Amino acid sequence: MANNEVILLDFWPSMFGMRLRVALAEKEIKYEYKEEELLNTKSPLLLQMNPVHKKIPVLIHNGKSICESNIAVEYIDEVRKDKAPFLPCDPYERAQARFWADYIDKKMHELGKKIWATKGEEQEAAKKDFIEVLKVLEGALGDKPYFGGDNFVFVDISLIGFYCWFYTYATYGNFSIEAECPKIVAWGKRCMQRDSVAKSLPNQHKVYEYVPVLKKKCGFE
Amino acid sequence: MANNEVILLDFWPSMFGMRLRVALAEKEIKYEYKEEELLNTKSPLLLQMNPVHKKIPVLIHNGKSICESNIAVEYIDEVRKDKAPFLPCDPYERAQARFWADYIDKKMHELGKKIWATKGEEQEAAKKDFIEVLKVLEGALGDKPYFGGDNFVFVDISLIGFYCWFYTYATYGNFSIEAECPKIVAWGKRCMQRDSVAKSLPNQHKVYEYVPVLKKKCGFE
Repeated sequence: MANNEVILLDFWPSMFGMRLRVALAEKEIKYEYKEEELLNTKSPLLLQMNPVHKKIPVLIHNGKSICESNIAVEYIDEVRKDKAPFLPCDPYERAQARFWADYIDKKMHELGKKIWATKGEEQEAAKKDFIEVLKVLEGALGDKPYFGGDNFVFVDISLIGFYCWFYTYATYGNFSIEAECPKIVAWGKRCMQRDSVAKSLPNQHKVYEYVPVLKKKCGFE
Repeated sequence: MANNEVILLDFWPSMFGMRLRVALAEKEIKYEYKEEELLNTKSPLLLQMNPVHKKIPVLIHNGKSICESNIAVEYIDEVRKDKAPFLPCDPYERAQARFWADYIDKKMHELGKKIWATKGEEQEAAKKDFIEVLKVLEGALGDKPYFGGDNFVFVDISLIGFYCWFYTYATYGNFSIEAECPKIVAWGKRCMQRDSVAKSLPNQHKVYEYVPVLKKKCGFE
């Protein structure tokens, strides 16, 4: 894959795009990063490469597109088997990893967004559910350094992009994620010590400062 | 897997459960079927085996549970590699198959449910979107007999359970799916000629007759 043409269509605050940035960095794959300003217009390339969902991130490998971030991370793992695998060999453990990545997909973004986009009862309910989801994930993490034990793997890649949004969730929701879920925060700090993560995630304050722009453009204010 | 203990926690009208029934039949795996009457109480076994989502279907293999139907189908494929594979070997084609299975998951159930559970404008909008989704899937199917070409594969398994709900959608929505999407209906009829499918899907009229019970219990009426 390294000798081939790899392009990433992405948008910097996207936690889904971050999955691909981290995965590509972990596998040491060079790629061309193309920023999409999704809030205004969608580029012809994005519409051509993801005609079904018309969403970033899109991985383009030798002209062929792979859409949906967890699917693209698994693709990267499969084409670059010589590097440390993201998914284990055992079918049951693979299913477990896919289960948690799917759980993160189904819960985190929607609840997190409600924390910064809503107020009052709706926000309180989202906050409560969000903490509950993080506690479930803490249970899956246990006392391991990463979801893959000593190895940084698929579930870690799936979740880590949300870490740079924690400051935004906590500030808008007026609560401490560290007080509620210390293990997940410690895990996030541990992940940030990896080059692949540190260089792929934007600064948490930059994310926070961007939210008012996002709220305005999405019509939440 | 065949010599081991395999249990399926399921509920007969579930299109997600049907995926596992079909996959297990395709791989000729014997299993114990345990019916869950989800609308009343959830069994202690279900709560124990799927504590996160508390939903069927759940595949239990030697006491270990695999939840989320597409993930469980992929698990069945991985533990029973000696039988015809559900997923292709090529990473790009695998990603494409996962993309369509994910698309079906994200769209079909929610839109289909709105057709029988709502009325007026909401129902009309759902009907329009549902037809659009089926047309996109028709595009992916093309002129092939199955989504996997000559082979009945992952995407076919992911979609086929909805086929026995088509009569319900069409009757409640007062439209003809065959007139709108003849290729998908022809594909469904073709799949029904397979033993694995014919014996795993309930009769379409039985599904239709069950909907008023479902509506009442879910509070839609």
